[in-house]
Amino acid sequence: MSWLDVFRGNRKPPPTAGAAKERLQIVLAHERISRTGEDFLPKLQKDLLEVISKYVAIDAKAVNVSLDRGGDMSTLAIEVELPGPKVEPRRQAAS
Amino acid sequence: MSWLDVFRGNRKPPPTAGAAKERLQIVLAHERISRTGEDFLPKLQKDLLEVISKYVAIDAKAVNVSLDRGGDMSTLAIEVELPGPKVEPRRQAAS
Repeated sequence: MSWLDVFRGNRKPPPTAGAAKERLQIVLAHERISRTGEDFLPKLQKDLLEVISKYVAIDAKAVNVSLDRGGDMSTLAIEVELPGPKVEPRRQAAS
Repeated sequence: MSWLDVFRGNRKPPPTAGAAKERLQIVLAHERISRTGEDFLPKLQKDLLEVISKYVAIDAKAVNVSLDRGGDMSTLAIEVELPGPKVEPRRQAAS
């Protein structure tokens, strides 16, 4: 089964016809050799959103995060509803 | 079905008992409203690996990338075999 199939199967139907949303989903899975290995997914979460916000404007209220840990595997799923992609990287504000 | 179940079902058995590898998988799915919407996943790929390499040493030869585009959805899957996580962020080399 391809990842396209997995995410299509996971797609939520839009509430009304005109309400289809652009959406970005990021799922990380960290498979550790031992159950006690360090889990760096929670630390990655902030960095990932920063990288993505270089390409699309992210509304913090439109971000849904779920972290799951089971034995030797952890998953981090981030779902972002997008207003619509701005393709050129956003220029950093002059600090 | 949780993402833990999805990735467990997608797990490759190690060739020999002692050869279990630490592994990180990142899958992004971008659902566009129109089929012609811009696809920024290929541009994200390099940035994502840079972010992850802050937490674990990445061997370029141990990275497997697959990009899939189908109609209004694209997926980018990055699989990294890890030597073993170094938890504190790596100090940037003095340039």
